[in-house]
Amino acid sequence: MRYAVLGTGEVGRTLGGKLAELGHEVTLGSRTKDNPTALEWAAGAGGSAGTFAEAAAAAEVVVNAVGGRVALAALEAAGVANLDGKVIVDVSNPLAIEEGQLRLDPVESDSVGEQIQRAFPHARVVKTLNTVNCQVMVDPARVPGEHQMFVCGEDAGAKEEVTALLGEFGWPAHRVLDLGGIRAARSLEMYLPLWVNVYQSLGHADFNLEVRRAR
Amino acid sequence: MRYAVLGTGEVGRTLGGKLAELGHEVTLGSRTKDNPTALEWAAGAGGSAGTFAEAAAAAEVVVNAVGGRVALAALEAAGVANLDGKVIVDVSNPLAIEEGQLRLDPVESDSVGEQIQRAFPHARVVKTLNTVNCQVMVDPARVPGEHQMFVCGEDAGAKEEVTALLGEFGWPAHRVLDLGGIRAARSLEMYLPLWVNVYQSLGHADFNLEVRRAR
Repeated sequence: MRYAVLGTGEVGRTLGGKLAELGHEVTLGSRTKDNPTALEWAAGAGGSAGTFAEAAAAAEVVVNAVGGRVALAALEAAGVANLDGKVIVDVSNPLAIEEGQLRLDPVESDSVGEQIQRAFPHARVVKTLNTVNCQVMVDPARVPGEHQMFVCGEDAGAKEEVTALLGEFGWPAHRVLDLGGIRAARSLEMYLPLWVNVYQSLGHADFNLEVRRAR
Repeated sequence: MRYAVLGTGEVGRTLGGKLAELGHEVTLGSRTKDNPTALEWAAGAGGSAGTFAEAAAAAEVVVNAVGGRVALAALEAAGVANLDGKVIVDVSNPLAIEEGQLRLDPVESDSVGEQIQRAFPHARVVKTLNTVNCQVMVDPARVPGEHQMFVCGEDAGAKEEVTALLGEFGWPAHRVLDLGGIRAARSLEMYLPLWVNVYQSLGHADFNLEVRRAR
């Protein structure tokens, strides 16, 4: 498959690297054509680097791995025509540190997942992976147990495609919990403060939630 | 021990019933002295019923089991002098349904746990149990696995006392995860929308989170 991964931070490089390792064609997208981090990544991972628009134009599936607060700007730069009909995998969190405090924006009455789906109504947005560190995203076996990955989105076919992608990453389908429509992106994004508290309590990011259930 | 459980809803009655079953003296507190639900509970469970102030005055430990949005009003009715120096176990969520949508208030920039600690600075507030259904609160074995209970609060001694109480409910100490100061009540309350989504996905409330970790 041909993937665009938007964002050259640790999340984008890690996801892009794993996709390339799995044999996919990957373009790491950034604001500028000659982003040194993206070029270095491309040389090392055997992928390509380009602008957001170049990456999205070449791709069948677009992964949003920029920060949640700049996601709409990056996708607008990618271009609506380059996104129409495509699956957008949104792994972002609308996270910022303000005066030493973690803050989310939007929060509770909206989510980045919904913002993207509203802004690009012909794209098929699936929210997933935002509840774990990027190392765990692409290597869930770092954490023992039958821990969960969540997905939500409006398009059942898109969720199936993303579930298959999660399977390539090491998340078997029985551990993928479908939370329904894209509105559930709110609850997935609102989990982040608890993730941060658990991270601070454990002292590392190699953890994830297993939803234990009576039946 | 002598407990006040503020609130005559399902959460209050369930917690009060378990505490009475464990041999504690329990007063179920409500706005009025002759609340029929509280009187019926008292007759059945072998506890007492009274106003918020009567319940708190008689108690060594106060459990806030009214809804998060009315918690301050209930505790003010209980009376600051009846709360001074006492452990307040806050199990509430600031939850309301507005136009068919789940809403939290406060959210993200504050929490009920913090509101209570600020309003009653000489009380020792511990936030816990708000992340599970009340049946699971008092009978964690309904759900298989080593799933977690979270605590947070400013007073280490109070957290130890509450951890011992959780032990009586069936939560062994190694499954109680301390998230630090009362500010973490924000993240525990913000988990609620995800709880609701998982509840809707599974179709029942007999579930809880196990924090799986590499180490």
